[in-house]
Amino acid sequence: MSEKTMMIEGRNAVIEAFRSGRTIDKVLILDGCKDGPVQTIHREAKKTDTLIKYVKKERLDQISETGRHQGVIAFVAAYSYASVEDMLDAAAQKGEPPFLVLLDGIEDPHNLGSIIRTANQAGAHGVIIPKHRASGLTAVVAKASAGAINYTPVAKVTNLGKTIDELKEKGLWFVCGDMKGKSMYQSDLTGPIGIVIGNEGSGVSRLVREKCDILAGIPMRGNIDSLNASVAMGILAYEVVRQRMFGESSL
Amino acid sequence: MSEKTMMIEGRNAVIEAFRSGRTIDKVLILDGCKDGPVQTIHREAKKTDTLIKYVKKERLDQISETGRHQGVIAFVAAYSYASVEDMLDAAAQKGEPPFLVLLDGIEDPHNLGSIIRTANQAGAHGVIIPKHRASGLTAVVAKASAGAINYTPVAKVTNLGKTIDELKEKGLWFVCGDMKGKSMYQSDLTGPIGIVIGNEGSGVSRLVREKCDILAGIPMRGNIDSLNASVAMGILAYEVVRQRMFGESSL
Repeated sequence: MSEKTMMIEGRNAVIEAFRSGRTIDKVLILDGCKDGPVQTIHREAKKTDTLIKYVKKERLDQISETGRHQGVIAFVAAYSYASVEDMLDAAAQKGEPPFLVLLDGIEDPHNLGSIIRTANQAGAHGVIIPKHRASGLTAVVAKASAGAINYTPVAKVTNLGKTIDELKEKGLWFVCGDMKGKSMYQSDLTGPIGIVIGNEGSGVSRLVREKCDILAGIPMRGNIDSLNASVAMGILAYEVVRQRMFGESSL
Repeated sequence: MSEKTMMIEGRNAVIEAFRSGRTIDKVLILDGCKDGPVQTIHREAKKTDTLIKYVKKERLDQISETGRHQGVIAFVAAYSYASVEDMLDAAAQKGEPPFLVLLDGIEDPHNLGSIIRTANQAGAHGVIIPKHRASGLTAVVAKASAGAINYTPVAKVTNLGKTIDELKEKGLWFVCGDMKGKSMYQSDLTGPIGIVIGNEGSGVSRLVREKCDILAGIPMRGNIDSLNASVAMGILAYEVVRQRMFGESSL
């Protein structure tokens, strides 16, 4: 991703961007809009000497990429990608076993944003995405992440399989969400771990799946095939959280 | 919801509609498209004497409500709402304690669809939505539900609080996703239960929250405020699944 300017749209996303300490070049606010969140944005902008421009709704509609600006658009330097090393360092600094989320070709930016948001709340140290066949860090992703993109590092790698091999050498285990796997409730998901979530349509690719140590299934009691990718990620990530909280004895 | 015709868009959604035995009036298929899923739809349509029309991409684009028809649009009678009674009957028939999902003002049709999909997979007996301030069962909801809307009943009620009171008399407990609540991992979620998920922005309304027996929190280890509503529902619903599988001893 280049360092060119990008937009953050929506109140919560803009407030989070300010609070995370990111450099915001300019903020556009709907003329006459004075409710609580907008006042917060106004205050944050003043505090950080950010240029504020009051514009008409038509102007915001015209500029908006998401179509859901809620009266606020901020312009910031593009989100920069982190390295996988950074994530391991962050885990070490917190004294926690690494917990990474690997996405094998998530194409829907809403899903990617939602997954970054959940990764943040689950205490994961980073999200790894492949360079190809995947959504990048766009304005839609930033909005769907509800600001989590400012806190949870995202790395882009050329070859997900190779990254898994390298991380295995550093002691990580990999668990792949797979309906044919053993129930995740009966799989040991403690310790340094990477969870792998597949593409919305085709799931985890064969090459990546074969590199995983554990295939963990979410019990499916319904009539259809699968769960939404970001929901499946949330359920699997929180099983890791639960096992981290209560230990293996909870299995 | 009236009984007027509505559309189902996308391959999986149309295949699921056929398989669930719904009456489909007509199916539009992209002219010249012959891949596997489309052939399946063709076969199902023939089997059920459904009218097939081959049309150009421009025509599908023009008709599509979701903008993601994937070359297939089916016309069916509108999804009809079920009653709460139906859901309790379904639970009784399966010999399971009732497991219901109550949505307090979910406005995003993608979230509603995704929640119906997760409810289906988690083995919930139905989803209850309020008549006002909420998304109804539109084509976008049907697509996001990946066909689950054909299996998992959805009821629309005038007053969610009153419905909770009535269901309490029938022995249900209500658990409300609430960040200030006790950890859900340490709350007893077994037995006849309704889980209550709040609006994307404002959460569960005070009146509904006060009626809940348990406020159950999803542990939040991140820097932001909340999770996506459909992800939060998935995590809470699967904690119910886990406790149903392993009993209270797993707390």
